[in-house]
Amino acid sequence: MPGILDEFFYPSTVALIGATDKQTKPGRAILENLAHFNGAVYPVNPKHGTLLGHRCYASIAEVPAEIDLAIVALPATLVEHELDALRAKGVRRLIIISSGFSEAGVAGAGMQGRIAGKIKEYGMRLIGPNALGVYNTDNGLDSFFVSRERVSRPVAGRLSIISQSGAITVILMEALARDGIGLAKAVNYGNRLDVDDADCLDYFADDPRTGAVAMYMESVADGKRFLHAAKNITVKKPLVVWKAGKFETGAAAVASHTATLAGRYGLYQAAIRQSGAVEAYGFDHLVDTAKAVAIMNYPCMGSRLLIVTNGGGMAVAAADQAGMEGFTLPHAPESVREKLGQAFPTYFVLNNPIDITGSGKDEDYYTALKEALPHYDAAIVIVLMGATSVTESVTELIARACHEAKKPVACCILQGLGYTREAMNVLLKLGIPVYPSPERAVRALSALRKIACRNVKK
Amino acid sequence: MPGILDEFFYPSTVALIGATDKQTKPGRAILENLAHFNGAVYPVNPKHGTLLGHRCYASIAEVPAEIDLAIVALPATLVEHELDALRAKGVRRLIIISSGFSEAGVAGAGMQGRIAGKIKEYGMRLIGPNALGVYNTDNGLDSFFVSRERVSRPVAGRLSIISQSGAITVILMEALARDGIGLAKAVNYGNRLDVDDADCLDYFADDPRTGAVAMYMESVADGKRFLHAAKNITVKKPLVVWKAGKFETGAAAVASHTATLAGRYGLYQAAIRQSGAVEAYGFDHLVDTAKAVAIMNYPCMGSRLLIVTNGGGMAVAAADQAGMEGFTLPHAPESVREKLGQAFPTYFVLNNPIDITGSGKDEDYYTALKEALPHYDAAIVIVLMGATSVTESVTELIARACHEAKKPVACCILQGLGYTREAMNVLLKLGIPVYPSPERAVRALSALRKIACRNVKK
Repeated sequence: MPGILDEFFYPSTVALIGATDKQTKPGRAILENLAHFNGAVYPVNPKHGTLLGHRCYASIAEVPAEIDLAIVALPATLVEHELDALRAKGVRRLIIISSGFSEAGVAGAGMQGRIAGKIKEYGMRLIGPNALGVYNTDNGLDSFFVSRERVSRPVAGRLSIISQSGAITVILMEALARDGIGLAKAVNYGNRLDVDDADCLDYFADDPRTGAVAMYMESVADGKRFLHAAKNITVKKPLVVWKAGKFETGAAAVASHTATLAGRYGLYQAAIRQSGAVEAYGFDHLVDTAKAVAIMNYPCMGSRLLIVTNGGGMAVAAADQAGMEGFTLPHAPESVREKLGQAFPTYFVLNNPIDITGSGKDEDYYTALKEALPHYDAAIVIVLMGATSVTESVTELIARACHEAKKPVACCILQGLGYTREAMNVLLKLGIPVYPSPERAVRALSALRKIACRNVKK
Repeated sequence: MPGILDEFFYPSTVALIGATDKQTKPGRAILENLAHFNGAVYPVNPKHGTLLGHRCYASIAEVPAEIDLAIVALPATLVEHELDALRAKGVRRLIIISSGFSEAGVAGAGMQGRIAGKIKEYGMRLIGPNALGVYNTDNGLDSFFVSRERVSRPVAGRLSIISQSGAITVILMEALARDGIGLAKAVNYGNRLDVDDADCLDYFADDPRTGAVAMYMESVADGKRFLHAAKNITVKKPLVVWKAGKFETGAAAVASHTATLAGRYGLYQAAIRQSGAVEAYGFDHLVDTAKAVAIMNYPCMGSRLLIVTNGGGMAVAAADQAGMEGFTLPHAPESVREKLGQAFPTYFVLNNPIDITGSGKDEDYYTALKEALPHYDAAIVIVLMGATSVTESVTELIARACHEAKKPVACCILQGLGYTREAMNVLLKLGIPVYPSPERAVRALSALRKIACRNVKK
């Protein structure tokens, strides 16, 4: 039996209540985004006969089809009344985009309470209010009120996003799009009046398109249900969770953001750990770890880490971070060092890190990795593209060596002007994520290790 | 009396030993970069009569001028012998670019020892070996063997860089260039055979072009001298220090990078704190804090922080980080909240963070900051450019409000596709640094606060 979210992600017919052509209104951006949906779209607004090439209906009652999903983008004060019309039409799945409910003070909380009553009475299921709703690369469904010119969408892929915050959802999506990481689905439930964190986890646990999940939460609806759902999904696929609202300052911010109580951080940390998920410590760490779990192919790692670099200082930074994360940096076996010593100039440093210096060439990365990587559990490869002797082809050689060794590897490629998107895609396609600083590469690899080690049956 | 580094940064005549036109050799990139120097350049290489439009000399003896500074870019094995020729010519300041000395094993260490003896005997001063040398925006002097096509140089400005690592030096410079932050001077001393960290600090303390210093170190030459020099400079200008090689893993990497011992991290931390410098915890933090000290105008802050956002989740992240850094987030006075309540729609959230939501417009940022900022010590302003209702002009309005309030402010602008370099420059020109995540903005502001509070006489 598919979860209740299936009808939100795979409707055949969608009505948009509050569709408009006004550029600054959510109803405009959503209508434009629905052009990508492989299903029927029915805009509703009494002021228009047509909208962006669609026939527009004066009310939901006039729509000449059964509606699987209604997206409500009306001012908050009009939503309550609209529910009656939606019920009369037989609509049972709703996304309420509108803000101005519990997050905005007493009057809004009153409205939210009345909506909660009606939803229950009418047997409806609801995502929102104060939410972006759903995004599905499988059928093009996109209820987000941000235009594609402003926020680019990632390509189709295996990562799914669950987020309490709309802002985090879109910024995470844009970060993935920028880095070429593929997305399966995303859901932002905002004030979480009905559909909640546990519902989303349960759905993605069984969704065949979802291979890994990145989650942003400020609170959970029900601690027990969350823990159960998180334990259930992490048996099947990796889950990365960023819990915000950790401290008093942040917890107060949560109360006025999604109108929930942030609760005690220590309890959340324990629950995340106990569930088998990995905790991300902030925005950058969530993005970095999500990238890793979305694309990396090789599971459980030991602690023996190899670092290869053409810039010593950056390798020291990586080595520091590796130490903090519990990696060890043993030297390569003597036989390997002898072999490399014959292949390389005397000024290359054949310890760990292996430093091929500012004079190191593309092939030297391949040689170092080919000989040494089989003796390690994982590697960090750092390339300063500013060095005169490396070219864009270095990514192909690194990818080849890592692929041959079948070991998990994260890259740090510095000085963005020197390499192109295609050069980076060579790495991504073979499951090698690329990061802008050595510390970030090590932290992502470390998160992967925690997940991978847990998922492998001993 | 100018410090000994003055003759390194302001020579009238420079000889480049090992000049070449071979694309992959350091001597080629340096010769190209010396084209920007406002002084006389004399390439030396017996194999060439001319090089890139310069007359080329067979040996230093043949150069028809007194040489203030010689840059030596020969293979390591040829350097020792060259010192005799340089002495005969009367050269007293040297930068040795060549690697392959102590950092590369026993044979290299032997050569480095012999060079040390000769330098002393001949009364020379040396930067290097295994170093990039010096970069000076004041006279265009640039001994770095990385081309400008590969590593862009920052505009002239007030930040100077001291670095034990060449890689960190150029990556930091490129990060500054990318963000439009101005540089005064940079020095990378590599194996630090002679000129050391304390010499550099002393020089920048008195350099009128240097307004702030960012420093990367793996070790210090002499603990007492370092502490004295750091204390001396921090009375005059802010100093940010990133100490790498913190842990066993990193310390081992240091030994094979710049051939020094990293020493105990706890002692370094204490020395940095005692000197009045601020510690950066890694590469990103060094870049972020350097940006802040390089451009921000307003000194000592209290702990009362205002957060203004159009995306609630990002404000929660900022609030969390603010709590960790010891900021408080009090609400604005009731009178301010009433005034904003009248100006804004009911669904804007008027706590702290002030959340103007995804519907907030450019002017709403101005209104919120104009009314609230005077009641705080500093602010973090977060803009999600993906929101339909904000435009590039938002940076002008934010800059104006912060300028009027004369309070230190850091911005986090997300979704890079939505804003241009010019829009960001409006902020930078008024001393408002811009960061790619809320946590990074808060951490940089916090570092500034530590520095600013210390420099103001109580």
